Amino acid sequence: MAIESVVPTVDGGRFPAKCIAGDALAIEADLVCDGHDLVSAIVQVTAPGAKSPTTTEMESLGNDRSRAVVTPTLTGAHSFRVIAWADRISTWYRDTLAFERSGADTTLDRREGAALLQRLRGALRKRDIAVIDAALQALGGPLPNPEVERAVALARRSPTPDATTSPDYPLRVDPPLAVCGVWYEMFPRSASPDPDRPGTLADVVARLPYVTALGADVLYLPPIHPIGRSHRKGPNNSLEASASDPGSPWAIGAAEGGHLAVDPDLGTLDDLAHLVTAARHHGVEIALDLAWQAAPDHPWVAEHPEWFAHRADGTIRHASNPPKLYQDIYPFDLEGPDRDALWAALLEVVRHWIDAGVRVFRVDNPHTKPFPFWEWLIAQVHERDSDVIFLSEAFTRPKVMHRLAKVGFTQSYTYFTWRETKSEIIDYFNELAHGPGSAYFRGNVWTNTPDILPGHLQRGSRATFLARLLLAAGMSASYGMFGPSFELMVRDSIAPGSEEYLDSEKYQVRHWDFDAPGSLAPFIGHLNRARRAHPALHRNDSLRFHHIDNDQIVCWTKQCGDDRVLGFVSLDSWQVQSGWCGLDLAALGMEPDEAFVVHDLLTDARYSWQGARGFVQLDPGTVPGHLFEILREAT
Amino acid sequence: MAIESVVPTVDGGRFPAKCIAGDALAIEADLVCDGHDLVSAIVQVTAPGAKSPTTTEMESLGNDRSRAVVTPTLTGAHSFRVIAWADRISTWYRDTLAFERSGADTTLDRREGAALLQRLRGALRKRDIAVIDAALQALGGPLPNPEVERAVALARRSPTPDATTSPDYPLRVDPPLAVCGVWYEMFPRSASPDPDRPGTLADVVARLPYVTALGADVLYLPPIHPIGRSHRKGPNNSLEASASDPGSPWAIGAAEGGHLAVDPDLGTLDDLAHLVTAARHHGVEIALDLAWQAAPDHPWVAEHPEWFAHRADGTIRHASNPPKLYQDIYPFDLEGPDRDALWAALLEVVRHWIDAGVRVFRVDNPHTKPFPFWEWLIAQVHERDSDVIFLSEAFTRPKVMHRLAKVGFTQSYTYFTWRETKSEIIDYFNELAHGPGSAYFRGNVWTNTPDILPGHLQRGSRATFLARLLLAAGMSASYGMFGPSFELMVRDSIAPGSEEYLDSEKYQVRHWDFDAPGSLAPFIGHLNRARRAHPALHRNDSLRFHHIDNDQIVCWTKQCGDDRVLGFVSLDSWQVQSGWCGLDLAALGMEPDEAFVVHDLLTDARYSWQGARGFVQLDPGTVPGHLFEILREAT
Repeated sequence: MAIESVVPTVDGGRFPAKCIAGDALAIEADLVCDGHDLVSAIVQVTAPGAKSPTTTEMESLGNDRSRAVVTPTLTGAHSFRVIAWADRISTWYRDTLAFERSGADTTLDRREGAALLQRLRGALRKRDIAVIDAALQALGGPLPNPEVERAVALARRSPTPDATTSPDYPLRVDPPLAVCGVWYEMFPRSASPDPDRPGTLADVVARLPYVTALGADVLYLPPIHPIGRSHRKGPNNSLEASASDPGSPWAIGAAEGGHLAVDPDLGTLDDLAHLVTAARHHGVEIALDLAWQAAPDHPWVAEHPEWFAHRADGTIRHASNPPKLYQDIYPFDLEGPDRDALWAALLEVVRHWIDAGVRVFRVDNPHTKPFPFWEWLIAQVHERDSDVIFLSEAFTRPKVMHRLAKVGFTQSYTYFTWRETKSEIIDYFNELAHGPGSAYFRGNVWTNTPDILPGHLQRGSRATFLARLLLAAGMSASYGMFGPSFELMVRDSIAPGSEEYLDSEKYQVRHWDFDAPGSLAPFIGHLNRARRAHPALHRNDSLRFHHIDNDQIVCWTKQCGDDRVLGFVSLDSWQVQSGWCGLDLAALGMEPDEAFVVHDLLTDARYSWQGARGFVQLDPGTVPGHLFEILREAT
Repeated sequence: MAIESVVPTVDGGRFPAKCIAGDALAIEADLVCDGHDLVSAIVQVTAPGAKSPTTTEMESLGNDRSRAVVTPTLTGAHSFRVIAWADRISTWYRDTLAFERSGADTTLDRREGAALLQRLRGALRKRDIAVIDAALQALGGPLPNPEVERAVALARRSPTPDATTSPDYPLRVDPPLAVCGVWYEMFPRSASPDPDRPGTLADVVARLPYVTALGADVLYLPPIHPIGRSHRKGPNNSLEASASDPGSPWAIGAAEGGHLAVDPDLGTLDDLAHLVTAARHHGVEIALDLAWQAAPDHPWVAEHPEWFAHRADGTIRHASNPPKLYQDIYPFDLEGPDRDALWAALLEVVRHWIDAGVRVFRVDNPHTKPFPFWEWLIAQVHERDSDVIFLSEAFTRPKVMHRLAKVGFTQSYTYFTWRETKSEIIDYFNELAHGPGSAYFRGNVWTNTPDILPGHLQRGSRATFLARLLLAAGMSASYGMFGPSFELMVRDSIAPGSEEYLDSEKYQVRHWDFDAPGSLAPFIGHLNRARRAHPALHRNDSLRFHHIDNDQIVCWTKQCGDDRVLGFVSLDSWQVQSGWCGLDLAALGMEPDEAFVVHDLLTDARYSWQGARGFVQLDPGTVPGHLFEILREAT
């Protein structure tokens, strides 16, 4: 009895597969048995802290493959195993029925069956013994017989002593926010309503109604710690800063404190705790940034010089990308001589902010730190706080991004901002939703970030911003934007060909008119409320692209049960585009000639439709897309 | 430093991947490192009995994937491992060059490099130390410098103490016959030149020139043991046999002996040894049949009743397929109480025939015996005789066939006889050549067997036999036929819809006119000599199908270095078919508009050709296909 090709597993069980608490999860395996015996199998899932596993019978899918569907309800580190065996009782019953129906004498077969049932009886709990006794009684009479079948069904759930047991495969169960959410990034110091002073955490509290109206689930703040003064960067990343320049929040640490402190210019730890509570009241989680590096004035530089790498002359090694040197940043030496104390201190940092109420972290450049460190850190955090979410900001080579997802990151930034053509978009979203990494890599697609003002937004129209928003919100259960630059359609870069914002908030305080006429905020809020109302948009496994005869229009559906959403986006920001699409109605569980209504969640328009073919025309002057719910006659 | 997605591996190293002695083997892995360090890696291959592994440097293929090419020369159980490390010396040299070229002061960098080289020096063998010393000397001068680069190259082959080592992955190295050969099956008792007596092993010796002229590499004989008399089957599988009926060779064992004996009607053990020697003199290996079952008169039934399963009344259990019972066959109880002794006895049987000179076995119905038995038996045999070949006759579900290949079978019969349409043929041969099982599952495609006279041959013309032969010989490095029924184009089945031969040699002696006019034997011999001359046809990894605008014509190529073979077969046995093909010349390493000549290995005809498009017309009245070698101007 061989158990092969078990899913969901990652690298043969080396890393956990991931799923969501409350979601149905299909566990499948090839159960390969020599000869012609029938096979029975169960799946056992062990929840964190559980004394014993819960058992689910597997059903055959044909071709030696079986499946059990389970629904974990707790978050945290689970495990599961498959147990399969050549089921002699089921095989005996099948064969005996065949002999019986052919008119053969089955006296011997019945004696043999009775012996098999007696052996099973010895291994059963008291309440099941009566089932066997009834079957033994019934074996004297004609077959098929329901009492005998009840005993056979019992055998199908009762592993024999020679059953094959798979390894225990780890399974990470996360909260729904791990896979579905709208992220909004904002610099607290740019949140001031008063143009004469920088913003504070208190100003962010005042902005919560705005953020809520946008439909955000997560409000992510860049680092809120004291900012280094030594080699501080000035506006537009200039090497010389004036006394009034605030510096980059990622140059962490000054006399006021390091990773455990709140920048006094922003407020206090209490202000943060208040913001977290107020945000949660609005249904918004506050995400903080974990950036494992220090400014030269970080207290740890003096207190723990052994936490940094040193050069041959005894000075601390700067960050560098040869031949460039970053004199305002010291990386931690996570594999250095005092590794254990440093790792423990960083775990302490995460727990400090968790204790302040934070459950979501965006992690800066995790790919420049060792994989074993992340595997240890995230496991330690999850052991106490199983629902904490880590978003990996690793814009690097694909296999490195995947390794980070394997070692524990809940989500990852993606290449979305650089996927622009129809075929790039289809290939990439198919890879995210259905590729070999989909058991552990969850993409969070961002329209822009403080580091990335994509060329298409710089060159684009209002329709470009709307199109990118619809692609992100309509195709990916998790997406994000950096505001208010996004909704205010900021498009000036520091230089031609650069993706850096001009006058970037990374290096200076900005004051924004959040309520400027023409802001996309009302549209974004409307879109996100529609998203929230449609379960089809909350997961990615149902994403499917459909044919449309125009290379500038993308057509897709997502589905959850009876909820079906049909999206169209035009990639042309200047000209009207139209086309005929051909929907794969069978894949949507619909009839080939079915008549239905599509209701545009963006404009409230309704159109009648029949069959697979349909015509759309998209105007960049209004909204360059549709997000339809499909309304069937029957529903 | 993570090592992922290593190939060739099977189930994460649970089973050996397979390769051929003397063939180049690419070993690849993803080497995933945090940060921006350069990665170095080696592959170590350990041959059977070797004291130390042989080491090969890996080269980067880009996208974090690396490859080493190795060529094992011995057959038997090898293992390999990948060792990879963040190469601080290579990284230091790259970074220092970048600083140097930017005009920065690199004094500190040179000091740090010297320290790294000193550390490497301490771990080196004597002869390499001079390389380091020369580099240390050269570090005072300008960079780049060849002495320093020699030391960096040395570092690339010298794993550091913190290098990551993959598990040891098993690798089975087989002789070329494991993947490439023409098999011919013949009943010795049908080999008599005298219609008044059955054939013997001596008659088979006399047939060797015929078999050699056919181009066979392996001559496979059904079981040659004494045949049981109890419940012996008569002609056409009838339940009543007359005294003169010889019975089925698969009903093994009688008073004259069991699996260790030669049927006295066929000859003696010496006759077999003589046949093996004579065949090898002709370049032909004799394959015997391993059928693990007994007739009721097998000596073991009385000597070792515990080697058989018993029913509730104490009688021995027959083979059955409910409601059918096979009263002439007792299966062995390979999981019974005397399991160890039975397994040892069966190993003894295999070694007995190996000692008689046999190196190739066709194994009857291995899927009705436990996988662990086969894994043990084949490993035991290979430990002493590493070049023995086992062909699995498992016509069963795909995953069972694959599991048998994983646990040790060298080759397997396939579904070829039931793949008839163009799309079925293309899909199936692509699966065999390129599917996920191709690292361990080697298909041997047969045109027919004593059990399978396919419907297309029953209904077909001479062209059908030729077409099936060309498909098998042209697409698969290993193929076989059951003769002389195949070359004499026997097509009568026992009943409509049945694949059983009428008057099957399984149950009666037949006498054949091997030299009948119209026999396909001369064509087969010609085809197999062409096959032998073309290395392209000796492996399957280069198989590629090309477009042709006719659903009755299959077009494919195989390639090995400069040897390129282009095949066409028409599946229409009655009408002339023609079509335009479009060859993927780029995939063949040829120029888009290249002019070349195709030379038909079957008819010696030559045609000029230019570019991808070409016209073919295939006539079932002559030969329904081409097997071209492609002759380029340059070669």
